[in-house]
Amino acid sequence: MPPSLPLLFLRRHHHRLCIRLRLLSTTAAASSHPPPLEVTLSHPIYMLWGSNTGVGKTLVSAGLAVSALSSSDPTNPPPKFVYMKPVQTGFPRDSDSRFVHRKVSEIFLRRRIPLPLLASGPASGEVPGGGAGDAEAERSCVMEGGWKDLWSYVERLVPGTESETGGSSSNAAELVCKTIYGWKEAVSPHLAAEREGANVSDPSLRESLGRCLEACLKGGDRTMCVVEIAGGVASPGHSGTLQCDLYRPFRLPAVLVEDGRLGGISGTISAYESLKLRGYDVVAVILEDHGLLNEAALLSYLRNRVQVLVLPPVPQDLSDDLMEWFHDSDKVFSFLREIMLAGFAERIKRLHDMPRKARNVFWWPFTQHGLIPQENVTVIDSRLGENFSVLKVHSNQCDQLIAPQFDACASWWTQGPDAALQIELARDMGYAAARFGHVMFPENVYEPALKCGELLLEGVGKGWASRTFFSDNGSTAIEIALKMAFHKFSLDHGILKDLTIDDFVERSLDIKVQWKLRLPHHTQASSSNHVIHGSGGMHMVDPLFQRILVKECQNRKIPVVFDEVFTGFWRIGRESAAELLGCLPDIACFAKLMTGGIIPLAATLATEAVFKAFEGDSKLIAMGCTAAVKAIQWFKDPCTNPNIAHEKQFLKELWDPELVRQVSSHSAVQRVVALGTLCAIELKANGCDSGYASIYLSSLVHRLREDGVYMRPLGNVIYLMCGPCISPEVCNQQLDKVYQRIHEFSTETAKHAEFVSLPEQSACKQG
Amino acid sequence: MPPSLPLLFLRRHHHRLCIRLRLLSTTAAASSHPPPLEVTLSHPIYMLWGSNTGVGKTLVSAGLAVSALSSSDPTNPPPKFVYMKPVQTGFPRDSDSRFVHRKVSEIFLRRRIPLPLLASGPASGEVPGGGAGDAEAERSCVMEGGWKDLWSYVERLVPGTESETGGSSSNAAELVCKTIYGWKEAVSPHLAAEREGANVSDPSLRESLGRCLEACLKGGDRTMCVVEIAGGVASPGHSGTLQCDLYRPFRLPAVLVEDGRLGGISGTISAYESLKLRGYDVVAVILEDHGLLNEAALLSYLRNRVQVLVLPPVPQDLSDDLMEWFHDSDKVFSFLREIMLAGFAERIKRLHDMPRKARNVFWWPFTQHGLIPQENVTVIDSRLGENFSVLKVHSNQCDQLIAPQFDACASWWTQGPDAALQIELARDMGYAAARFGHVMFPENVYEPALKCGELLLEGVGKGWASRTFFSDNGSTAIEIALKMAFHKFSLDHGILKDLTIDDFVERSLDIKVQWKLRLPHHTQASSSNHVIHGSGGMHMVDPLFQRILVKECQNRKIPVVFDEVFTGFWRIGRESAAELLGCLPDIACFAKLMTGGIIPLAATLATEAVFKAFEGDSKLIAMGCTAAVKAIQWFKDPCTNPNIAHEKQFLKELWDPELVRQVSSHSAVQRVVALGTLCAIELKANGCDSGYASIYLSSLVHRLREDGVYMRPLGNVIYLMCGPCISPEVCNQQLDKVYQRIHEFSTETAKHAEFVSLPEQSACKQG
Repeated sequence: MPPSLPLLFLRRHHHRLCIRLRLLSTTAAASSHPPPLEVTLSHPIYMLWGSNTGVGKTLVSAGLAVSALSSSDPTNPPPKFVYMKPVQTGFPRDSDSRFVHRKVSEIFLRRRIPLPLLASGPASGEVPGGGAGDAEAERSCVMEGGWKDLWSYVERLVPGTESETGGSSSNAAELVCKTIYGWKEAVSPHLAAEREGANVSDPSLRESLGRCLEACLKGGDRTMCVVEIAGGVASPGHSGTLQCDLYRPFRLPAVLVEDGRLGGISGTISAYESLKLRGYDVVAVILEDHGLLNEAALLSYLRNRVQVLVLPPVPQDLSDDLMEWFHDSDKVFSFLREIMLAGFAERIKRLHDMPRKARNVFWWPFTQHGLIPQENVTVIDSRLGENFSVLKVHSNQCDQLIAPQFDACASWWTQGPDAALQIELARDMGYAAARFGHVMFPENVYEPALKCGELLLEGVGKGWASRTFFSDNGSTAIEIALKMAFHKFSLDHGILKDLTIDDFVERSLDIKVQWKLRLPHHTQASSSNHVIHGSGGMHMVDPLFQRILVKECQNRKIPVVFDEVFTGFWRIGRESAAELLGCLPDIACFAKLMTGGIIPLAATLATEAVFKAFEGDSKLIAMGCTAAVKAIQWFKDPCTNPNIAHEKQFLKELWDPELVRQVSSHSAVQRVVALGTLCAIELKANGCDSGYASIYLSSLVHRLREDGVYMRPLGNVIYLMCGPCISPEVCNQQLDKVYQRIHEFSTETAKHAEFVSLPEQSACKQG
Repeated sequence: MPPSLPLLFLRRHHHRLCIRLRLLSTTAAASSHPPPLEVTLSHPIYMLWGSNTGVGKTLVSAGLAVSALSSSDPTNPPPKFVYMKPVQTGFPRDSDSRFVHRKVSEIFLRRRIPLPLLASGPASGEVPGGGAGDAEAERSCVMEGGWKDLWSYVERLVPGTESETGGSSSNAAELVCKTIYGWKEAVSPHLAAEREGANVSDPSLRESLGRCLEACLKGGDRTMCVVEIAGGVASPGHSGTLQCDLYRPFRLPAVLVEDGRLGGISGTISAYESLKLRGYDVVAVILEDHGLLNEAALLSYLRNRVQVLVLPPVPQDLSDDLMEWFHDSDKVFSFLREIMLAGFAERIKRLHDMPRKARNVFWWPFTQHGLIPQENVTVIDSRLGENFSVLKVHSNQCDQLIAPQFDACASWWTQGPDAALQIELARDMGYAAARFGHVMFPENVYEPALKCGELLLEGVGKGWASRTFFSDNGSTAIEIALKMAFHKFSLDHGILKDLTIDDFVERSLDIKVQWKLRLPHHTQASSSNHVIHGSGGMHMVDPLFQRILVKECQNRKIPVVFDEVFTGFWRIGRESAAELLGCLPDIACFAKLMTGGIIPLAATLATEAVFKAFEGDSKLIAMGCTAAVKAIQWFKDPCTNPNIAHEKQFLKELWDPELVRQVSSHSAVQRVVALGTLCAIELKANGCDSGYASIYLSSLVHRLREDGVYMRPLGNVIYLMCGPCISPEVCNQQLDKVYQRIHEFSTETAKHAEFVSLPEQSACKQG
């Protein structure tokens, strides 16, 4: 029975070391909703990155393990160290988790003193033999070409007792070394996976890692975990996705193991920047001393924000068992471990304090501060694509985790990028900031502004617009549009000719207010068009009515403004409302999705007839235009947006018609609008207590947040809004959650007679 | 005479190859204004970067040289190739420029056919001997420990003539290989410079490179230049500055030579990202084939935006003369050269077309389009710190260059970062975009927003403010402040209690207008304070008057608003106007410099007494707060801002008092305000034709732009505005230019009787 050989072998020689092999299943139970990638905050988990292969990541892991496991003392619970290797190539010949396991065992055997764990044990110099690799291979599930569900090495170091078995295992220090996927060839994972035909999707790998972390980290108050990444920061993973992108949804804090050789500074800094460009936090950089003082240059670059640690030179003699090197490195590893523990503690404290501090420091808009108890403040640790990562605190306060929440209100309708575009935008934002910073606009031209202007005129302005006026945000863009329209109207109709610009500016404010009130009174100076009336409760306006309105206005030389701040750039399934309506405006306003929401920027497009010398306001920045150029192109390119269909004319249907039908025919539902990226559901309300500021549905919304859907109601309208590149599957998963909760909610409230279907209740809402 | 040995040697053997050694002086003439770093656009100049040392940059340079020089044909002018190595370590034993020179010579000797240059020549296999290195060393100026002003190798390949000497040199193809600085030790430049004690400042090195480029590129219609960087992208230069930062002012387009080995993908991508994070444009990536298909992963990452080229494997045998390898690589180098030429041509065309396109596409704010002829449109290629890099076209249209222009209006008062902060901000912007993208704010909290709020309350709000309200821009911040003040006033004085929020919002707009008109009428609801009245012409208001006004208002329970949009964050030498005035507001507004100007973000700070539940508007983004956190800290940290003095209380005096006195006592000058980062000069005007919209000083401004100062006048006030971290030397250089031009201008205009000093002219301006 070869697999148990090392176990027997060890037992014979030192009965305090008890080795078990344990299967940690990584197979997900079949489920329509894949489990969310939650990351526990109960223990420190770090990702160990390298700027390159062969910089000593595995040595650092082993050193950390020794340091952690040596920290045992009677007054504290026993320590546990988890080493995780998600992807191993060259397997089973190469196995970093086997190396860590062996090396740690070897060190503990060798160091009879001063390690209290082994102090009374008759530890010998012998270590587990070479059979473990084969065992690992044999016991794993064999994929086509590769392995998964690999055995992990688990070792318990039982302190202060002569008992040999796991009777006192709850007091045992524990080392777990786990490999998740393995491939035979010792090449980059993407090549190995390709050559050996093993097909593992990115979500499967992440799910496996999530499950393994959960399983390995259960219990233990003094557990520490290190996840070692294969190769360099931006080396492709098994599917070809760069590893820094692949593991981004976890956003685990990072330790960077670096190259101390000539040229290592450049590689370290670039690797660090690639991690920052994915939103990772790096707590420490550690490198091997090659006598080049690389650490000085790194410290200068990092300006002491990140600790830099130097390890003694690793002996080049392959026969060296490194025992001396590990001894010499003890202090460095102990310091590194302290940095990691302190970084973890600081993060936990900060997250924990944030709601309280936020309530003291912020003055939130649109918010009755008295109505927001501390526990209702959402702590957002990060976002990726459609998902927030929020802090979840369970009842006992100790069990905190970071969990994803689908941002169903698209952060006030501006969010558009998927994960890939977000990372591209991050790089482009860095580029624009470095190339341009802020540059003023009037009488100047620079590449992003010109490119963005051209894209707008060739895209949403095609066939009618000839000028782009940039401004800060949608409301300013609308104000500018109204000024333009008013001016055009007054010129066409021969009125107000003698006003100065300053008079005009003040009067245009009046006009704006009147325009809202008097529509469609004949004195109006301009007509503004909404396909969806967003903040009023997601009402659709009959396109035929709008088309006729536009035509009638234009016949009367009344300039028509399309307010596309909400609708522009695929929100409603077409790039613009003009396309949906089949008629053209004189002026149109765009914002929100234009930059993917990442930077405030708006544009008012106008026909050449409207173009006049006008006073206005703009803080155009190169960064906003850079973002807009990338986002506009990304959304409509079938290579980057799989939802683009029919020669870039349509967005694929994102909402399953059957599910939408089911929702809309539910007795608690008054009305459903499913159009493009929007699915709005009006619930039947009891009486007239609805309205924008209402907190009517807070209970439903609260439950949906528990389900991982972040929502904000508009009166009794709730909505899901997603980016144009989202997978329809994700859309329908969220919609299904909403449906389930509506059903549950309405059943409950019906019991309490709080929800009554009144046929006339819609007349209560503001029109 | 050893130095000339190779020359003699060659002449004996093949009379078509004529080698000269030429000294290109890199010593700047002593001058108070260092020459601007202009970069010619008459020839393509590329920077050759590597992700690491030893990836073959010099081989690529040699290959490009061969390709360029082989492109000679009778119908075109002769080609010229310039190879530039700014810093060489291991010198003179190692010399990349010698290697390029030798290898190219060797190839041309060897390849009798099909190179037309040598077709009729009796070229032998012999090449310049080893003496050249010594020659190089001997003929250079010896610095303490290092060498500078090194000889360059110049080689002329005279086509189609039997004449031996330079008589027909104007028709000669030419290779110039030039090293600028050399150090002995073969280590990273910063270590070599340190160990050998040779002290070269970054500006000196850049100036030398600029001069060498200018000298080497003179003449020749078919010149191409490659500047090869030492080590990796982020390797420290001789002074310790990372090379990607060191050469950023040139922002030359880049070719990245990469590592085709295992782990090379990660290094390549990270190096690429480090270049993008400095605002560089990369046109091609080239790597050696190691059989790992690295190029596929790179192409996937780069999404075909950048060309990826693969060179055949370089023979590992050191005795191999690489003749075969160069032959096999011919097509790759020829393709690379085409990419570089096409990239250059495209850039030139784009720059050339930008003014015309801008006039067609944009609707600029504050601009009478009819008054802006095409040649007055400023094409901004990039900015770094205080300087724009603008396109300059000389009269003959062929002589275009990119020249720096000091942004004296701080891009409408928002620009603050120096070059170092700009690059830090770029990385932080990338980080914030990757970590957060856009996340909505109400009821939420995330790290940058909390950190920014805390920094504001601990900094500019210290001692009085308790709440931060974020908004998009300064004008919104002011509007919010007025709403707050009005509300507080109405509560304190028992009026308007029965108004709803909506009523209030509309009325507050009226109040805002009235407030402007009625100050200091007793019915005013709030008082707003300006230390400097910016857009009105940079008027200083008496601080004593303001202090008393504040006190009187507060005695009457009239809330006081400090408008610090312009003055906040060291613009006037203190972090806030409150510090300058020595009294505290109830509400204050900040924007512009708060984020270093890089992202629109504003904050309204309020006392706890003012804090009420309020309706407002905010598109707060994590990115803006991230920028604000970095900028606010950077400006006041003596480690990053050398101008901070007296325990962070003051900004050092930036404007030389003597020069200011000189300017202010000039007969053409009415008034000078030199305060903090601002130096405003009011010129005496003839009559009442001044005002904000005036184009009165356009001629003066135009001349100053020629001098490299970008200015926009406010009526007859011109001003220099700089960032808080700027060197006072730079400030005074700009002020001196202004003084010179004012003097010249006033002398000229006095001749034409257009400028008359009228004692009472100031009464003509709006108050």
